[in-house]
Amino acid sequence: MPPAWTTPPPQPDTGARDRGLQRQAVLTKPPGSLGQLESLAVTLCALQGSDRPEMDGIAITVFAADHGVCEEGISAFPQAVTAQMVANFAGGGAAISVLARELRASLDVVNLGTVNPLQGPLDGVRNQPIAPGTANLAREPAMTNAQVMAALAAGDDAAGRASDAGAHLFIGGDMGIGNTTSAAALACALLDEAPQHLVGPGTGLDAQGLSHKAEVVTRALARHGQDRDPLAVLRSLGGLEIAALTGAILGAAQRRIPVLVDGFIVSTAALVAVRQQPRVRDWLLFGHRSAEPGHQRVLDALEATPLLDLGMRLGEGSGAAVAVPLLRSACALHNAMATFDDAGVSNRS
Amino acid sequence: MPPAWTTPPPQPDTGARDRGLQRQAVLTKPPGSLGQLESLAVTLCALQGSDRPEMDGIAITVFAADHGVCEEGISAFPQAVTAQMVANFAGGGAAISVLARELRASLDVVNLGTVNPLQGPLDGVRNQPIAPGTANLAREPAMTNAQVMAALAAGDDAAGRASDAGAHLFIGGDMGIGNTTSAAALACALLDEAPQHLVGPGTGLDAQGLSHKAEVVTRALARHGQDRDPLAVLRSLGGLEIAALTGAILGAAQRRIPVLVDGFIVSTAALVAVRQQPRVRDWLLFGHRSAEPGHQRVLDALEATPLLDLGMRLGEGSGAAVAVPLLRSACALHNAMATFDDAGVSNRS
Repeated sequence: MPPAWTTPPPQPDTGARDRGLQRQAVLTKPPGSLGQLESLAVTLCALQGSDRPEMDGIAITVFAADHGVCEEGISAFPQAVTAQMVANFAGGGAAISVLARELRASLDVVNLGTVNPLQGPLDGVRNQPIAPGTANLAREPAMTNAQVMAALAAGDDAAGRASDAGAHLFIGGDMGIGNTTSAAALACALLDEAPQHLVGPGTGLDAQGLSHKAEVVTRALARHGQDRDPLAVLRSLGGLEIAALTGAILGAAQRRIPVLVDGFIVSTAALVAVRQQPRVRDWLLFGHRSAEPGHQRVLDALEATPLLDLGMRLGEGSGAAVAVPLLRSACALHNAMATFDDAGVSNRS
Repeated sequence: MPPAWTTPPPQPDTGARDRGLQRQAVLTKPPGSLGQLESLAVTLCALQGSDRPEMDGIAITVFAADHGVCEEGISAFPQAVTAQMVANFAGGGAAISVLARELRASLDVVNLGTVNPLQGPLDGVRNQPIAPGTANLAREPAMTNAQVMAALAAGDDAAGRASDAGAHLFIGGDMGIGNTTSAAALACALLDEAPQHLVGPGTGLDAQGLSHKAEVVTRALARHGQDRDPLAVLRSLGGLEIAALTGAILGAAQRRIPVLVDGFIVSTAALVAVRQQPRVRDWLLFGHRSAEPGHQRVLDALEATPLLDLGMRLGEGSGAAVAVPLLRSACALHNAMATFDDAGVSNRS
């Protein structure tokens, strides 16, 4: 299989979509009365090429890495937290660990490079460091070409593991102190937006911190210049975990696995993926609207309306995970509701 | 126990609420980053009087009844559908049947009076007809005093069964062709609103049908007059299933069971309950915003922001049922996430 970023993904199955629409029209409910649960079910028919979409096997992969831009003082939390949280994922105490158990989902944690090395082997963590964090994107390209390619490949590999496991859905998550700065810079470059529109408080900056963060992104964009090639922008302004998420999204679409996109970081990775391979958009569902203000602009660019809007802004894939039961409900209703004929219920006159 | 409508419900446990807030502050996440899932967990601590709220046992009761106002031609579906759908609930083919199975929730169906009698005993259906539907509320009071009291008591009884089963949450649902007309009339009377602001397409009226429905509600309000006593309004403009929902909500609050309120019909029943006993509001959570336009005005009056906004407008309690996994996620995160100390993760500087 060629790298996922060099070839367009397959197309959804329009025949299965049409049959899904026909079935929705004869289930015992007023037409349209299940709202987005109807369109979700029909979309999943098309993506899975099935008249009865399934949502049992959920593959969650969280990619972790550190960001050199932290030396600019752009985060409310110390950089050591990235590696500490990887241990917390392994220990089962992080939000995404709890949610994965609730969902009976697999949780795959891939460390692509933290400043502080991980302490010993950790259960369920793939330790594949590419570098001890990126370079400071405000001063130089965040990654070398070899690094960004290795990160994309690590993401593609994770999608491959999900496919091998027969996953019905892929969720990518992020962990990396400083990564809202990188994501804001990426989104600004790809969308030609001003930093003040896309920079947000992340884990909890105050107004002064926010203004400084916007200034750091402004410097990064000036340093980067005008190159709008998606992978060039990713190399210059991204992070190892963001590049891996881009690779995972491209790889999942390539393998016909629907992706439930999480918040600001993962949506920015998805934007890179869609700029690289526009047909990838067909394979994306969106879990929640982040409270991080830049997310809305990225969603607009992707023409995406998330299922949930609960004021979450945690990352880790947690917003997508929380939305999984809605997909399961959509499938269950589509597959198990009676038709008007079967149930002997009168349809509208 | 005196009838639930005559006494205020107990108060939530403020000590448990405070301890819940303290715990949220030390879980391994930036403060506030789980958004509404944090406030939900804390609210459930207070309502359940527990430091570790639970959301396993879900009691769903769907109340069914017919509406005399159907003779005015205000519904897109024939009145026979009410009884047919009761059979569909029993057969497991309705949306709420499918969702109840997915949630491992109990599903209790109570028939309070359909125009067409039910065909034989139906599995899981309590056949407790009070009248073969209400009178036509556009011409005369929908119920007699004895009927509305019997319906309130049937709802209170359902809450009692939920309490006996140890339910952690109560969901009420409605089935009754014509009931959006009744709910719109009720809401107009209680909120002093004009019918055109609260009448909607229900199961699928066109513009002409909508205009006729508003005219029917206008006649009903003129006939009803100025009495704003909640139970008098309910008797005059309500339905048997709406009165039972009011009784169930009052009864659940009385028994310290949180209620997850569904869409337009159930919210209107909740409005009657809150007007009758204002402290009932403490016990209400809101599942989804209905596409039925009148719902927003009722939510505003209840100062409620629902968890979901998916364009659903089916009734049966389906919108609340779809939101249950969010409550479960909120409890799981609250109960099972690690603290900064336990996980050895650095808190913000």
